[in-house]
Amino acid sequence: MSSHAHRTIHEAHHHFGWDRSIPPVTTIAPGTVLEFECPDASGGQLSAKSTVADVPGLDFGRVNPVTGPIFIDGAEPGDALKVTFHGFRPSGWGWTANIPGFGLLADQFTDPALHIWTYDKVGMTPAAFSPMGKVPLKPFTGTIGLAPAEPGLHSVVPPRRVGGNMDIRDLSTGTVLYLPVEVAGALFSVGDTHAAQGDGEVCGTAIESPMSVVLEFDLVKGAHLKTPRFTTAGPVTRHLDGKGYEVTTGIGPDLMAGARDAVARMIDLLTARHGLKPVEAYMLCSVAGDLRISEIVDMPNWVVSFYFPRLVLE
Amino acid sequence: MSSHAHRTIHEAHHHFGWDRSIPPVTTIAPGTVLEFECPDASGGQLSAKSTVADVPGLDFGRVNPVTGPIFIDGAEPGDALKVTFHGFRPSGWGWTANIPGFGLLADQFTDPALHIWTYDKVGMTPAAFSPMGKVPLKPFTGTIGLAPAEPGLHSVVPPRRVGGNMDIRDLSTGTVLYLPVEVAGALFSVGDTHAAQGDGEVCGTAIESPMSVVLEFDLVKGAHLKTPRFTTAGPVTRHLDGKGYEVTTGIGPDLMAGARDAVARMIDLLTARHGLKPVEAYMLCSVAGDLRISEIVDMPNWVVSFYFPRLVLE
Repeated sequence: MSSHAHRTIHEAHHHFGWDRSIPPVTTIAPGTVLEFECPDASGGQLSAKSTVADVPGLDFGRVNPVTGPIFIDGAEPGDALKVTFHGFRPSGWGWTANIPGFGLLADQFTDPALHIWTYDKVGMTPAAFSPMGKVPLKPFTGTIGLAPAEPGLHSVVPPRRVGGNMDIRDLSTGTVLYLPVEVAGALFSVGDTHAAQGDGEVCGTAIESPMSVVLEFDLVKGAHLKTPRFTTAGPVTRHLDGKGYEVTTGIGPDLMAGARDAVARMIDLLTARHGLKPVEAYMLCSVAGDLRISEIVDMPNWVVSFYFPRLVLE
Repeated sequence: MSSHAHRTIHEAHHHFGWDRSIPPVTTIAPGTVLEFECPDASGGQLSAKSTVADVPGLDFGRVNPVTGPIFIDGAEPGDALKVTFHGFRPSGWGWTANIPGFGLLADQFTDPALHIWTYDKVGMTPAAFSPMGKVPLKPFTGTIGLAPAEPGLHSVVPPRRVGGNMDIRDLSTGTVLYLPVEVAGALFSVGDTHAAQGDGEVCGTAIESPMSVVLEFDLVKGAHLKTPRFTTAGPVTRHLDGKGYEVTTGIGPDLMAGARDAVARMIDLLTARHGLKPVEAYMLCSVAGDLRISEIVDMPNWVVSFYFPRLVLE
C-alpha cells in the first residue's frame, strides 16, 4: 500500500492541538500522495499490555496527537483541500476505554474501564470482544483537519469548521473528503486512527488503534465550503448490517436527551439479553452501534434511534 | 398479501388524535393478523390531481388520520404490544409537500410546494422525481401507536412513549415493533403510510401515500419498556446505498443547529450540481437522505451528518 505514497511522514512529526504557527513538516504540490504514521489516541500512554489501572492516570494534554502539519503549495483561504483515502496499514491492536467524565453517559458510568483488542491486521476479520461479541472492522481517521485562521493553540478535542476530531466513521478507504482552508498552505494533520466505531462514538472512544494511512491531496480553488463534506465510494454499512439491527428509541423535545435515552435503552437490552456488564454493553455500543435521527419535524417531539447490528452478538 | 389477514379494518374506521375514550373498532386475541386500510396523511384533502394551490388550505385538524383503535385482549399497562409487519399493498401514488411553518428549515422555505408521485405499485421500482431523480421505495407506517394513559385528546403530530407519529423509516416489512402499553387493551391504531422517506423526514413530509398494511399482534407480558424498540429482519439501506453517498456536515454545540446546517449544505450542493430548485432539493432530501449523529462526545462540539444516496441522482 505504502508503495503508492511519495513519502512517509513519521509519527515523530506529531503535535498536540491546532495552531497555525506550528512549522510544517514539509511542503507538497497538489497531487502528492503521502503515508502518515499515526500513534494511538493516547499518544502511547496505553499499550497492548495496559490494564484498567492505567486509565485514570491518562494525561489529557497528551491525547490525540496528530501527524503533520503539511503545507500544500498554493492553498489559500477559501479553497477546499481535497483528501482522497487510499488505504490503511492497521497495527493489529487497539483499546476501548470508559474514561470518567467523558462520554455520552458519563454521569451513569463513573468508573474507568478498558478493553484491549487484538485483531487480524491482514484479513481484518471481525474482532472478538468476548465469547459472544464480534465487531466488524473498518479503519478510519478520527481526527483529520487543518489549522484554524484564529491564532493561538486550539484544543484538539472539539471538531471545528476546518475539521479536526470529527470521528466520522466513514472517513475510510475510498472516501474523498473536502475541508475548508482558512490559512495559507492549509496546514493539514491527521491522527486518532480507529479500527471500528459506530455513528456517535457514544462511550467517547472507538477501537483506538495506531496505524498508517495513505492520503492524496488536491486543491479545489475558491470552493468556499462552509463545513466539511465528503463522498463515499460505495455503501457504508454492508460490513455489519447483514443480520439487521436491534433498535431502541428516545422520544422528546431535546435531541441530546433523546440520544442519551436511546443508548441507555440499548444498554438495558444488551445486558438483559446477553449477560454483558453495563459498561461492556456501553463500550460495544460505541464501537458498533449507530445514532440516527429518525424524525426531526413532528413538533415538539423528535425521535433519536440507536441501531445495534445483530451480527455482533449472534 | 391480504389473504394472510384474518380481517380487514377499513379506512372508514379512522380517528384524529389519540384518546383512550375512543371506542375500539374490534377486539382481537393475541396472534391475530389484521389488514389496515390507511388513507394518506392529508386524509384525502390532497389527491393525485392536486396542485400547489391546494397546500395552503390544508386543514391540520384533519391530518394523519389513523385506522383503529384495536383492543387487544389481555393487554394491560406494563405489557408490550408486539407488532410484526407482514407487508404492504401500495396505492401507486403519493405526494410530498413543503407546508409553510412546518419542517426543519421552515424559516428558509416559506412558500408552499407540492410534488405528486406516481409509482409502480407492483414492481416498486424507484420513483421518478424529475428527469434526474429516481427515489428507491420502501413502504412503512409513519404513525403507529397506542392510546396514552392520560385522559383526553392528544394531538397526533408529536410522537410519544406509546409511539404515534414516529416516522421511523425502518418500520417496514419484516420488522418487529414493541410498543409500551399504557391502557387496558392497548388501543392500537396505524396510518400515515409512506412509500419512501429518509431518516429525519427533514422537509416535514415523505412520499405520503395511501396503502394497506398487514400486521400481526402479540403480547409480551410485563415487559416494562420505557420507549418503543424494534428489530429489523435484515439490512435497512441496501435499496439505496449501492453507489455510496454525498455527505455534508454541521459542527457545533447544538444538535438541532448541526442538523439544520448539514441539510442546508446538502441543498446547496444539490442545487449547484444538478440544477434543482432549492425547494426541490429540500423535498428530495426528505424522501431519500439520512440524518446521522457522527459524533456526540467531543466536547463541546458535535457532528451531525446528512447522507444523500448518490444513485438517486446518477
